[in-house]
Amino acid sequence: MTVNRRFLLTRRPHGVPVPDDFQLAEEAVPQPGEGEFVVRTIYASLDPAMRGWLDDVPSYMPPIPLGDAVRASVVGRVAASRDPAFPEGAWVSGLGAIEEYSVARSGGFMRRIDPDAVPSPSNYLSVLGAVGMTAYFGVTDVLAAKPGQTLLVSGAAGAVGSLVGQIGKIIGCRTIGIAGSPEKVRRLTQDYGYDVAIDYRGKDRAALEAEIHAAAPNGVDLVFENVGGDILDAALTNLADHATVALCGMISEYNSPEKIGARNVWQLIVHRATIRGFLVSDYLPRFEEGIGTMAGWLGEGRLRVDEHIDRGIENALPAFLRLFEGTNEGKMILQVGEA
Amino acid sequence: MTVNRRFLLTRRPHGVPVPDDFQLAEEAVPQPGEGEFVVRTIYASLDPAMRGWLDDVPSYMPPIPLGDAVRASVVGRVAASRDPAFPEGAWVSGLGAIEEYSVARSGGFMRRIDPDAVPSPSNYLSVLGAVGMTAYFGVTDVLAAKPGQTLLVSGAAGAVGSLVGQIGKIIGCRTIGIAGSPEKVRRLTQDYGYDVAIDYRGKDRAALEAEIHAAAPNGVDLVFENVGGDILDAALTNLADHATVALCGMISEYNSPEKIGARNVWQLIVHRATIRGFLVSDYLPRFEEGIGTMAGWLGEGRLRVDEHIDRGIENALPAFLRLFEGTNEGKMILQVGEA
Repeated sequence: MTVNRRFLLTRRPHGVPVPDDFQLAEEAVPQPGEGEFVVRTIYASLDPAMRGWLDDVPSYMPPIPLGDAVRASVVGRVAASRDPAFPEGAWVSGLGAIEEYSVARSGGFMRRIDPDAVPSPSNYLSVLGAVGMTAYFGVTDVLAAKPGQTLLVSGAAGAVGSLVGQIGKIIGCRTIGIAGSPEKVRRLTQDYGYDVAIDYRGKDRAALEAEIHAAAPNGVDLVFENVGGDILDAALTNLADHATVALCGMISEYNSPEKIGARNVWQLIVHRATIRGFLVSDYLPRFEEGIGTMAGWLGEGRLRVDEHIDRGIENALPAFLRLFEGTNEGKMILQVGEA
Repeated sequence: MTVNRRFLLTRRPHGVPVPDDFQLAEEAVPQPGEGEFVVRTIYASLDPAMRGWLDDVPSYMPPIPLGDAVRASVVGRVAASRDPAFPEGAWVSGLGAIEEYSVARSGGFMRRIDPDAVPSPSNYLSVLGAVGMTAYFGVTDVLAAKPGQTLLVSGAAGAVGSLVGQIGKIIGCRTIGIAGSPEKVRRLTQDYGYDVAIDYRGKDRAALEAEIHAAAPNGVDLVFENVGGDILDAALTNLADHATVALCGMISEYNSPEKIGARNVWQLIVHRATIRGFLVSDYLPRFEEGIGTMAGWLGEGRLRVDEHIDRGIENALPAFLRLFEGTNEGKMILQVGEA
């Protein structure tokens, strides 16, 4: 291969990203400089948080510069190397971009992975990647979940939410999941072990509040929030005293210039409750612990991992938009190249 | 006196309370039953939280039943007694109502107080009452303020906020206060020791955000929130990483059936920040510690306490509404009777 196809951000999206915000460029495959290596991308992770990086708004990561390839977590193999620690053919994972070839150097964001330790190397972008670590540290540290507590999860059939529910059950929580279709609701109880599953579609805030109340008449002790909007508001009116809400994401708002936020935040006073925002990157020093525990549960067959893999870099945008349409079934991954 | 004038709730207010929501009834002065005593009310505390008790909404306290006198913290003296622990003439404070005479019994919500230990017995409704304990435990426990941290306070000239700022300075914080008039802003720096004072009147959210940013370019570590609305939103865009927001009240919303809440709650994710709702009643077991510390600072001249005392039970409603108009200068207290 001599051509490097790259999915470039060429304009800041307003609301839902459209094809004209991007360009699929063809460039020469880069060569590694001294101490560098070139990664051939096999899998790129598509995550809701990437929507924020497309905006020109200071956040926990700098905005993606216009003209750059869209930043993403990736799994790939070393295609050329001038770094003996990353020999040609080695499997790696880390922060890369949606492009066929990326230049990297050791001490940066790429680390070697063992593809034989997992059912599929793509698992390093799901259960053993940021998604899995978000679920693991969100439940065990941010929420500090304990046996017998009631755990409400929004986006419960999603990449993070499906793992959150399963970790909750392993710990001994009662789990209530909210998702957006009859098929997803079926998966919540049958595939991810949720005790109660709620379909939010077609329900206003009051109906949703009533349904959560019916599932947890004494209130919920823990909320793992991925969605925001009416769903967060309905959760806030169902808090038990001293409840904790882990604020992981608010996908319902990422394409909206005007934010709804949390209209029922006054309920935090009534119930002496806490909302804690968190980023998985703060747990990097503990990733080894998290990956070890999750890999152990995976090996014991206690975690079901669903991945939704779309193929072809030319499908990057429609694959990304599935996250907001809710048409993905599992962790959204784009296969950019062959193993 | 044979007449007991009582300020009764006769209709649930919609929005701002109006005179027709209440009735000033004249009843016979109650007589104490066995083990009871009758308290003659001298001072009644008027607090924003009382607005919530007027609604028929379950909260941390039951709604005030229609036809009952409006619940309030009071300071009074025992007028008649069949309980030797509360002899006639004794000074008491506790949860009573806006009425000239109340029946109480020991083991209930009344405790004896020492009027000679303070400049005025009304201080038991301000610096040594719920207001003072809210400020004390909000700063020292909910926020766990430490020397060198930047503390932003909304409603900073109010009963709670003025104490919050002073406690923050005693601890060694840099304090930024927000209030709603040039006169209040003057008091923030001159009377309550705030390092920076911001007048929110006439400013939109963006202007307020910019003004907080100018006062704290690296963000605020701690927020003591009394107001909500645009002021809370502007605070949320100015958080330092790992900031804590103590959510004490949201007075800007108490008369609004539709809540704004916290539109910028997504900033909690960006800054891995926390909002903690709290109620001072959870600190009842530690009130002795709090009252002791605050009384000590008061005795040392380190706390300035302002009380705004309106006179006459017939003025209960306009005095209460001052809290929402912002026309009180200090802790709002209604003097119902003479000492």
